[in-house]
Amino acid sequence: MNRVALVLIATVALAGAATFMASASGQDDGESAPIYGVKMPANYRDWKLIAVDNLLVAGKTDQLRAQLGNDIAVKAFKEGQIPFPDGAIIAAIHWTRVRSEDNIIVLGGPFPGAQSFVAGSSVNVQFMVKNSKKYASTGGWGFADFKGGKPGDKALHETCFPCHAPAKDRDYVFTHYAP
Amino acid sequence: MNRVALVLIATVALAGAATFMASASGQDDGESAPIYGVKMPANYRDWKLIAVDNLLVAGKTDQLRAQLGNDIAVKAFKEGQIPFPDGAIIAAIHWTRVRSEDNIIVLGGPFPGAQSFVAGSSVNVQFMVKNSKKYASTGGWGFADFKGGKPGDKALHETCFPCHAPAKDRDYVFTHYAP
Repeated sequence: MNRVALVLIATVALAGAATFMASASGQDDGESAPIYGVKMPANYRDWKLIAVDNLLVAGKTDQLRAQLGNDIAVKAFKEGQIPFPDGAIIAAIHWTRVRSEDNIIVLGGPFPGAQSFVAGSSVNVQFMVKNSKKYASTGGWGFADFKGGKPGDKALHETCFPCHAPAKDRDYVFTHYAP
Repeated sequence: MNRVALVLIATVALAGAATFMASASGQDDGESAPIYGVKMPANYRDWKLIAVDNLLVAGKTDQLRAQLGNDIAVKAFKEGQIPFPDGAIIAAIHWTRVRSEDNIIVLGGPFPGAQSFVAGSSVNVQFMVKNSKKYASTGGWGFADFKGGKPGDKALHETCFPCHAPAKDRDYVFTHYAP
């Protein structure tokens, strides 16, 4: 009967672990990005925050951006682990940066002259997936770029790795973990 | 012996639940903010992302900001639940917005003239804690503002609720959930 108890406990533990693994690595049924075959992880919007940034190209681009990571990626960021371990996934969410008139009215009280910009519509979402064997020829990373849930074309994805190459000494990752 | 097995399983399950609850609501041993008695939740930096924004006051303030929520808060945001349920906590992290010369060199390739700004040092971290009974006189919210882990003074905390009052129809919360 002790054996029954242990089997039951092991079953409960394994079911828990399976649930965790499914939610940690879960990929949805959407289209795969070309070259790398990466799909959008179903739950990436609930991942932990790595950092935020703002990209401006006068007259062309004005984005607020956030980088999120799955548990493996965030642990590596916190511990300064380079290279990132297999299984790490980084998501970069890019929104338009738009003025918030609501916020400006309120913030103008304590901060006269305040300008407030918030995340508007989604521009695209990019992913870096670490698999040192599968993606050995691109620094161990697979790349993907989605707009409205659809992956970009092959030509777009051919630009990913060359663009990240200058960050080779940081395992091809530009983002630093924000305090 | 079946009883032993059930007790063991129940113990494992309760230990798991206790760990979850401790990490979901866990507050650290730091100082409490005046008026509301709110402490910094120990694990807020690992909460889910609600939205990001940028506050500019010419010559004075230039911040990148992120709002994170505990599970109760994020569920309410996703479901559009107003008022927020008791137990919801929203964290607002404010960093200086600083130029990233590293990023500019790289992004200048695909985006000629690109400017890149990233999260610099921490300015302050603010919290809104929903407890409709305890904080009945301030819309059900307790407020706290920390710099370097230390709460601001009473005068600062007296400004929190009046500033949030214009958002009464959104339960005093300015932030919208980013897509």
